[in-house]
Amino acid sequence: MGITLEQAQAAVKAAHEKSLEMGVKMNIAVVDAGANLTAFARMDDAWLGSLDISIKKAKTARFFDMPTGAIGGLSQPGGSLFGIEHSNGGLITFPGGIPIKDASGKVIGAIGVSGDSVENDHTVAEAGAQAVGGR
Amino acid sequence: MGITLEQAQAAVKAAHEKSLEMGVKMNIAVVDAGANLTAFARMDDAWLGSLDISIKKAKTARFFDMPTGAIGGLSQPGGSLFGIEHSNGGLITFPGGIPIKDASGKVIGAIGVSGDSVENDHTVAEAGAQAVGGR
Amino acid sequence: MGITLEQAQAAVKAAHEKSLEMGVKMNIAVVDAGANLTAFARMDDAWLGSLDISIKKAKTARFFDMPTGAIGGLSQPGGSLFGIEHSNGGLITFPGGIPIKDASGKVIGAIGVSGDSVENDHTVAEAGAQAVGGR
Amino acid sequence: MGITLEQAQAAVKAAHEKSLEMGVKMNIAVVDAGANLTAFARMDDAWLGSLDISIKKAKTARFFDMPTGAIGGLSQPGGSLFGIEHSNGGLITFPGGIPIKDASGKVIGAIGVSGDSVENDHTVAEAGAQAVGGR
Repeated sequence: MGITLEQAQAAVKAAHEKSLEMGVKMNIAVVDAGANLTAFARMDDAWLGSLDISIKKAKTARFFDMPTGAIGGLSQPGGSLFGIEHSNGGLITFPGGIPIKDASGKVIGAIGVSGDSVENDHTVAEAGAQAVGGR
Repeated sequence: MGITLEQAQAAVKAAHEKSLEMGVKMNIAVVDAGANLTAFARMDDAWLGSLDISIKKAKTARFFDMPTGAIGGLSQPGGSLFGIEHSNGGLITFPGGIPIKDASGKVIGAIGVSGDSVENDHTVAEAGAQAVGGR
Repeated sequence: MGITLEQAQAAVKAAHEKSLEMGVKMNIAVVDAGANLTAFARMDDAWLGSLDISIKKAKTARFFDMPTGAIGGLSQPGGSLFGIEHSNGGLITFPGGIPIKDASGKVIGAIGVSGDSVENDHTVAEAGAQAVGGR
Repeated sequence: MGITLEQAQAAVKAAHEKSLEMGVKMNIAVVDAGANLTAFARMDDAWLGSLDISIKKAKTARFFDMPTGAIGGLSQPGGSLFGIEHSNGGLITFPGGIPIKDASGKVIGAIGVSGDSVENDHTVAEAGAQAVGGR
């Protein structure tokens, strides 16, 4: 559904190369339009706890078709979506998850990256998403 | 227990029609007095992540017989119910879940709506609840 | 993805009418091509434990694109798929779940019915599936 | 721990190529010595329910350092490990999961494949494991 394995692997490869260039160790997950895992890579010695986070970031970005950090802006104490992380078996709402769109702007999947600062996670996710989509 | 399937379907239908009128894409769940799912509809292309949230909103509203947003007011940091979302397999405590009452004021079920802003979610849930109850 | 809400509701309605005709009380669930709940109805006084079973039957039928009973034939002790029920958060592999296909034969979703004997569950599911698809 | 990403990706690639050669659509998962997902690929239109099964097969093979089918031989009714599938969040004990060893015979990870008959799942897993290890 949506993204193909070939596209998903291209996104993982681009994110992996960006990580090597930046000197960071990442978990990289790509889900399809149904939020199902399609391709995944865990770099050697990447944080163990980031495996689950990378998959949850990818799913979260597809669940709501927006970057995970945008949801996090609304889920803070006092925010309109406070506590949304308790749904769907656990969401991750800080940066590092980005929808992947095709050339027409339709969301075909999402990428989630975890393993370093959220800024670096987001940068690597962007590199992966851009390798596929018409973002 | 409580709400009948006929009433639950009337609530879903009213909420669905309100959603079409407002131009929003919603997940709509109705639970009975036992907090068991009784009727459900997911509009085409509604957010995937809102499916679980709509059901959790309906359950949360029945679990405590109050609108979900009222619980969220108490579950903020420093609040008396801080962290209550961790119970019952996950609660949702922002607006969009409303108890459904019969003409005598007795709670017979609840409706949960998710798919847009929490204000719109709540408005659609109200339309559903009013189609049944003597609110 | 796949089945529309309108089609899913038509399947639920046909299954509901078949249940009334047969004098049985059913839980009826329809999932889309992504195995996500799309429409649901629980008849008054239907077995409470059948709610979850009906949803799991629908998901199982879509997960493997075959009637749930066909999987159950392979998951018996000594069978090639013994214990498959432990995957995907719990599968149901006895009859009552059926894929829903479009006129071209493509699977667009599935229906799961639970509330009576597995033979009756299957009969009601068939009525629902036939209301939509080109089976 | 154990298998490197480079080795894991080589195993996925070999299993993917074997699947294409056989004309089957597989989910392919590789875990490291800590039973953590290291590389994954889901072929286009592979069974949705096989995603979770492929990962559980890989984990099960590493949890006990033996092919999953060997465990299934012991977990039948009356067998010494009857019901072991209930542990570890769900095991899969039919064929398709194989430990991956290094040249010295030390287990460094495992591969799990799901998407077709268990015989074909096992054949594809073997192709993946052999691409890495000194089996």
